[in-house]
Amino acid sequence: MPQAHTIELRVRYCECDPMGVAHHASFVPWLEMARTEALRASGRTYAQMEASGVYLVVTKLEVAYRRPARYDDVLRIVCEASIAGRARLRHQYRVELAQAGDGKDQRLHDQPLASATTELVCVDAAGRPCPLPTWLAEVVGATA
Amino acid sequence: MPQAHTIELRVRYCECDPMGVAHHASFVPWLEMARTEALRASGRTYAQMEASGVYLVVTKLEVAYRRPARYDDVLRIVCEASIAGRARLRHQYRVELAQAGDGKDQRLHDQPLASATTELVCVDAAGRPCPLPTWLAEVVGATA
Amino acid sequence: MPQAHTIELRVRYCECDPMGVAHHASFVPWLEMARTEALRASGRTYAQMEASGVYLVVTKLEVAYRRPARYDDVLRIVCEASIAGRARLRHQYRVELAQAGDGKDQRLHDQPLASATTELVCVDAAGRPCPLPTWLAEVVGATA
Amino acid sequence: MPQAHTIELRVRYCECDPMGVAHHASFVPWLEMARTEALRASGRTYAQMEASGVYLVVTKLEVAYRRPARYDDVLRIVCEASIAGRARLRHQYRVELAQAGDGKDQRLHDQPLASATTELVCVDAAGRPCPLPTWLAEVVGATA
Repeated sequence: MPQAHTIELRVRYCECDPMGVAHHASFVPWLEMARTEALRASGRTYAQMEASGVYLVVTKLEVAYRRPARYDDVLRIVCEASIAGRARLRHQYRVELAQAGDGKDQRLHDQPLASATTELVCVDAAGRPCPLPTWLAEVVGATA
Repeated sequence: MPQAHTIELRVRYCECDPMGVAHHASFVPWLEMARTEALRASGRTYAQMEASGVYLVVTKLEVAYRRPARYDDVLRIVCEASIAGRARLRHQYRVELAQAGDGKDQRLHDQPLASATTELVCVDAAGRPCPLPTWLAEVVGATA
Repeated sequence: MPQAHTIELRVRYCECDPMGVAHHASFVPWLEMARTEALRASGRTYAQMEASGVYLVVTKLEVAYRRPARYDDVLRIVCEASIAGRARLRHQYRVELAQAGDGKDQRLHDQPLASATTELVCVDAAGRPCPLPTWLAEVVGATA
Repeated sequence: MPQAHTIELRVRYCECDPMGVAHHASFVPWLEMARTEALRASGRTYAQMEASGVYLVVTKLEVAYRRPARYDDVLRIVCEASIAGRARLRHQYRVELAQAGDGKDQRLHDQPLASATTELVCVDAAGRPCPLPTWLAEVVGATA
């Protein structure tokens, strides 16, 4: 992933389930955090986008879960954005283990925990699809 | 609790944590569901209140946890509203086990799982406190 | 979807986001509820499966979001299971609007809100893949 | 709060509700994160406690909400632990705004957003109350 953005986060207790691992639904907000920070790193924030009347709505979500994340693990999420049409963005994600919360460091040498793709459509305040803001298309186009 | 309203709900897998019990944060949305349905039973809905420009904002939350709720348990939540000032409502809740998800029916004879209190302040669209709508004050006053 | 199982649920306030619609992550626990109830309808529960030392772990999740769900909407989720290998189940879901929380009944004539697919692998207590229990393979095979 | 521990976190989009502010239930996991990091700062982790067969179960939660937290806000949570009996810990929390996600820096001069108290009881793997581990009682006693 060239020019990808990376975040780290620690798995919360309440994000884990009776199997003792992160519940599969917990990954979905983590992906959102990753693309939010990727946007911030490009110089503007999603909060600013919304304040200007432009919204990004998720239309597609795909996650492949390979290995469990555990309580107190530090995860690294690598996120790369690309243009998927005049009004659409695609993000691809790789979720990796950065630090094992249970101290079992051999888990660090494993494959990624998960990979994911999302698609977002740009809409106005009335919910109608609209072209990506020029600055966003340029930022993402430049990294793609 | 005279004239209290009761709901039932089933504990979701994702609401439970690595201890195998419902995470303590999971109870908070359940309380909200209980007071939402108590309001609906009185003839209007919270969605209608918001559509009319009046909002209820939680200012205080107190929960005493006594026994664990478990995955697939059916819980019964008894909720009673009262007036707590011109712009304030108080709700009191009792969370009981209605059906044991693990089939351990002796758990049914136990005490309540939790009790709770919330206070809500009525605000307008700008976030300024405003008197409870007359119909709401009357409905709650009549049950208190 | 022949022999599909259907559940209904009401969208919680805390499941909605600042756009005023259900957050896309909120759909993921709903899918889990749908397949849980489909299993229960077949005569055994997932809680019983876990008590017998057999677990179902999500390995794949795909959701296509078409229209927003809103606070207080009643949703109908249609879920159909199929065999996807000796140790794997696939579920397909259609999320529909059963009752509009905002009273805008014209929304009822719209297309489904979302469709989804999940894949689950059967594992033992040590996390090793194992064949689906015979009763489960038979129940799902019979409906597929 | 002498010797209190402080964390910072950013409010997630999915933690906010249709009023455009953090849902009141979202604060509860944040408190848990604060006391988790306070414990880590003392030299051991809650994950290690559980691995040694000792668990901390929340028995009481009180939150007073004063001002809203908003999407993308950076919050500062100050947490102080104290001994509340042979088997009990009490934590007190103050949630402050560290950075306004919407750029409205005048919000920074406001009062704390919320204050909270939790009580936790120490239990063994069977769920029976047991004395706090000596190291924990010493660490907390020293800061109280």
